[in-house]
Amino acid sequence: MDVLLCGELDADELHAWRGALGALLPEVRWLDPAQARAAAAGVQAAVVANPPRGSLLGLPGLRLIQSLWAGVDRLLEDPTLPAGVPIARMVDPAMNAAMAETALWAVLALQRDFFDYARQQRAVRWRQLPQRRAEAWHVLVLGLGQMGRAVTRALAQRGYRVSGWRSGGAASDEAPAGVAGHAAFDALWRLLPQAQVVINLLPLTGATRGLLDARFFAALPSGASVVNLARGAHLVEADLLAALGAGQLRHAVLDVFGEEPLPPQHPFWQHPQVTVLPHVAAQTDVGSAAAMVARNLRALRDGRPIEHLVQRERGY
Amino acid sequence: MDVLLCGELDADELHAWRGALGALLPEVRWLDPAQARAAAAGVQAAVVANPPRGSLLGLPGLRLIQSLWAGVDRLLEDPTLPAGVPIARMVDPAMNAAMAETALWAVLALQRDFFDYARQQRAVRWRQLPQRRAEAWHVLVLGLGQMGRAVTRALAQRGYRVSGWRSGGAASDEAPAGVAGHAAFDALWRLLPQAQVVINLLPLTGATRGLLDARFFAALPSGASVVNLARGAHLVEADLLAALGAGQLRHAVLDVFGEEPLPPQHPFWQHPQVTVLPHVAAQTDVGSAAAMVARNLRALRDGRPIEHLVQRERGY
Repeated sequence: MDVLLCGELDADELHAWRGALGALLPEVRWLDPAQARAAAAGVQAAVVANPPRGSLLGLPGLRLIQSLWAGVDRLLEDPTLPAGVPIARMVDPAMNAAMAETALWAVLALQRDFFDYARQQRAVRWRQLPQRRAEAWHVLVLGLGQMGRAVTRALAQRGYRVSGWRSGGAASDEAPAGVAGHAAFDALWRLLPQAQVVINLLPLTGATRGLLDARFFAALPSGASVVNLARGAHLVEADLLAALGAGQLRHAVLDVFGEEPLPPQHPFWQHPQVTVLPHVAAQTDVGSAAAMVARNLRALRDGRPIEHLVQRERGY
Repeated sequence: MDVLLCGELDADELHAWRGALGALLPEVRWLDPAQARAAAAGVQAAVVANPPRGSLLGLPGLRLIQSLWAGVDRLLEDPTLPAGVPIARMVDPAMNAAMAETALWAVLALQRDFFDYARQQRAVRWRQLPQRRAEAWHVLVLGLGQMGRAVTRALAQRGYRVSGWRSGGAASDEAPAGVAGHAAFDALWRLLPQAQVVINLLPLTGATRGLLDARFFAALPSGASVVNLARGAHLVEADLLAALGAGQLRHAVLDVFGEEPLPPQHPFWQHPQVTVLPHVAAQTDVGSAAAMVARNLRALRDGRPIEHLVQRERGY
């Protein structure tokens, strides 16, 4: 089988993917865009990480586009994306576990004031703050996909009161045991006033872009915190700064930004109530992710169903 | 029943304990040291938090000393402590949960480089570090009492490789399911070379004082981290600074210190590889802890067994 492998990968990353995929699928020829254009009709699948625009054109035999990344918002924005070819997202158990770790760390730090104690240390200040119990903390997780579910499970296991929300569909099917599932926007506006922490894990679509804005922050109880682990464009950065400045929000943990890397002059860097992470909440684990790609490519070869297909019309 | 209530408690704390205990045990008269001396033989129990030396003398009817704190090392150092009166430590499920939260937060931050990312933020630096998997991380928990067991359970639940060690006795009886239990010092020296993180939750005794010293740090693999949540006197602070400076240790999370509050000029405050917490890893939850005290005082009244008795000869 001939497979195009391309995208925003540096030489080391490309080498790692080639090694991991090659070991699992020794029968595949891995082609770069120029080689794929030469092979043309022989190319049956493309394994991509935000591929250059136009790189999937002129491949009439293409039957699967497998993303190496969980978020496919930028891939779907490409107007040259061949219509009618199935697209599969990355779903990697190691990445779900990493996301759950990051979310749990952020919630523990917020519940137990560890960000405040870090500020006190820098100010050489010894002061004990009142201790909160997990059972009294309501955490709202936006997004009930693979990652959202992994996060809600990890939080519920530690005793937090957890609600999960998704923008569409029937949330009850997607919420793990012990997690209250909700769907549609009217439910969101009812949930926000109870949430001490909101964790964003939504897909980026027309309906969710800019959701974390002034109106959203105003609906939270005073002193709530926001954790954005999804996409920078979910968040209106100026509104967040205003809500922090006004005391409406207590703290923000941000892994994603409108511009990445976050520009050096951006106010988030020096803001005492903002924790900046360099897009590391859940890095792809090449070994584990390659196994998922190999399962889908074997399914394609053998005529079995492809896993984790994107629904283009809903945008994820 | 007449009960002495005294110790290192400020007016607010004393008021909170009186309120919580009074609500649970309306029949008890709570006495301060002067009132207790007046009542003398009528005082059957003392509820104490590091009481002033001598305050338990001259109470011939005393049948129980109930500590409000989990650590009884300072209480046992008091040469005026009446011999032969049973001593019970504080065991509070809310405090065990708080300790598990602090330990889990520290291990997540170490595993996933969140302390490093905080340093990078202060330096306005965007750099992704390689992501580690919990399954590949070996965490060694020293101490398998109530708190040590709560910590090992929380870590094992998140997928870490967890070993628990206690200084004496048969460790296998004390280790929760999924946790490898070990006892005695020869086992400790075999465990240390495998541990990426060591969490100290030992009682402070003659055998454990100063255990975290240069020899201990040298037995760890290079780049290991230390989390001290027990007592400041377990740690030789100068040896820790030397091991951090030499690169043998990567990071230390310290909740307890030789002198508390930590003096402003102490090098830990400004050290980039030291996280200073102001003795808040597990604060007493008065509501939950008062319930435990009430159970023991009712047991004393009714002639039932007292819970969580200290063995004076072993020191905890």
